[in-house]
Amino acid sequence: MINAFAAPSAGARLEPFSYDPGALGSDEVELQVEHCGLCHSDLSMLNNDWGMTRYPFVGGHEVVGRVTAVGSEVRHLKAGQRAGLGWFSGSCLSCRSCVGGDQNLCADRRMTVVGRHGGFANRVRAQGAWVLPLPEGLAADQAGPLFCGGITVFNAIVQADVRPTQRAAVVGIGGLGHLAVQFLRAWGCEVTACSTSPDKAGEAKRMGAHNFVATRDPESLVRLADSLDFILVTVNVPLDWQAYINILRARGRLHLVGLAPDPSLPAAAMIGDSKTFGASPVGSPAVVMDMLEFCARHKILPVTEHFPMSDINAAVKHLEAGKARYRIVLSNDLD
Amino acid sequence: MINAFAAPSAGARLEPFSYDPGALGSDEVELQVEHCGLCHSDLSMLNNDWGMTRYPFVGGHEVVGRVTAVGSEVRHLKAGQRAGLGWFSGSCLSCRSCVGGDQNLCADRRMTVVGRHGGFANRVRAQGAWVLPLPEGLAADQAGPLFCGGITVFNAIVQADVRPTQRAAVVGIGGLGHLAVQFLRAWGCEVTACSTSPDKAGEAKRMGAHNFVATRDPESLVRLADSLDFILVTVNVPLDWQAYINILRARGRLHLVGLAPDPSLPAAAMIGDSKTFGASPVGSPAVVMDMLEFCARHKILPVTEHFPMSDINAAVKHLEAGKARYRIVLSNDLD
Repeated sequence: MINAFAAPSAGARLEPFSYDPGALGSDEVELQVEHCGLCHSDLSMLNNDWGMTRYPFVGGHEVVGRVTAVGSEVRHLKAGQRAGLGWFSGSCLSCRSCVGGDQNLCADRRMTVVGRHGGFANRVRAQGAWVLPLPEGLAADQAGPLFCGGITVFNAIVQADVRPTQRAAVVGIGGLGHLAVQFLRAWGCEVTACSTSPDKAGEAKRMGAHNFVATRDPESLVRLADSLDFILVTVNVPLDWQAYINILRARGRLHLVGLAPDPSLPAAAMIGDSKTFGASPVGSPAVVMDMLEFCARHKILPVTEHFPMSDINAAVKHLEAGKARYRIVLSNDLD
Repeated sequence: MINAFAAPSAGARLEPFSYDPGALGSDEVELQVEHCGLCHSDLSMLNNDWGMTRYPFVGGHEVVGRVTAVGSEVRHLKAGQRAGLGWFSGSCLSCRSCVGGDQNLCADRRMTVVGRHGGFANRVRAQGAWVLPLPEGLAADQAGPLFCGGITVFNAIVQADVRPTQRAAVVGIGGLGHLAVQFLRAWGCEVTACSTSPDKAGEAKRMGAHNFVATRDPESLVRLADSLDFILVTVNVPLDWQAYINILRARGRLHLVGLAPDPSLPAAAMIGDSKTFGASPVGSPAVVMDMLEFCARHKILPVTEHFPMSDINAAVKHLEAGKARYRIVLSNDLD
């Protein structure tokens, strides 16, 4: 049996819950959960905001732990090894996207906490292809959020083909944005952090931002006109899209990873200066591996707050209150 | 003196008009106009739709002719050589965009028929950098529209980095679209032509389309779900953007060159499948040169209708009536 915390219904308090995972599939891996990030998507799923939650609901998709068992087909992991698991937990591995290295775009991709049980538990299982070894030198108790929040923004940088010579901005300095700032700084870019909270200026700069812009002042954006090559939008609120297109220079790319309301874009300005609007989900296993190596090389980790897993309801409240700075990690104290 | 046809005021009939072009600049070229396309942008300028027309207005920005004089700094053209001139007639040649090969994105780019006189004349001048030799084997009386309509869609294919293995669709089979179909066919792609006019099916297929979709039937788009890598929108009318995003497969790119009303795009669908919305203007001189060589290699030319320049008002009426199939060229009979 696996011991977990589950919500019996939408928005309910999480309670101890046990389930029998059955026999391990030949393509599966089981992890003993050491640490698991608490992501905003766990909240959305807990509250059934996306209409796809099944109850009892066991969240948790930013897992770091030790491999306890591997199926007969799994070749890249061994029992005892430290590894991580993120938002996706499986894909068909045989379609054009999968065999082309875009497993994250597979039409049959499976999500760790959708229709199955996640990492708020002592153990969790997933398809081996989506469980990736954690490099030496990355702190296990902080690395979990890289597997969802981290790879969301890292993959955007990869997909948008951002170059080290370019000037990048990050809109929203939260769980995703504070990692994006670190990535883009190490990537070689000039980094501008954009936030509605002026009090994040100091921290953003300590994380690597060269510039900070308090976006509640509309003039602050106007002053950036025609200066940026890449803008990464990590927030999920309506934006003045035209203002952001305007601060791109020619060939600039506005890129969305936050589930914002559908953007309306200025056609003439985009045609005239060859500007692009892109979007992307979390990355494929190969991009996750590149991210982990990049993080180890540059000592990039999320800024985390820690709760014991048994205190998960307090952690949920902290996140709901918008108080997380910047990412919550639950450390396992379940048997 | 240069003898031209000019509109004295917005929407007026074109009348003979002469002007003194002054001394030829050291960076300029003068062309004796042999043929000049009549583009929809000439109509928009004639009617001051964009609020930037100066009168008397001399349109014409799809020029093919013989070089009559070159300024002292111009090295790539000689008197007597056949060359063409399109929408842009100059740029600063010293900014980052210009020195990087993106002269078409220069902040100081100048347009052939904006604030200066164009090719509805016996002669026309432009900065030499924007006057490009016409390869042998391209019919001079048909090549004019390549310099605006053609390069608009060719540049989109280049900028979106379309690959020969991919599946492409062209929305709108008109002056731009009928060239895009030919380009994409020669590019190696599977080509789907989309038009509101079912009667264009036969012609679209003769131009190289593998498939034809009559888009007035909404079901026709639904049947294409998840099948295309690249969609080039050449029309300037509102579209069901969500429907077009849906017929892209993962990593697909929707690309706009028609001045459509600002599109509203489905954020969640674009994030989930890593889809992109791009836009671009006419191409740089190097991309024009590539296009001309590609056209000569693959015998690509616009389908044209011909009027003598002295009959320009009849040609304007024909275009206004939506009857052009597919591009009008005026052949010079002015002294």
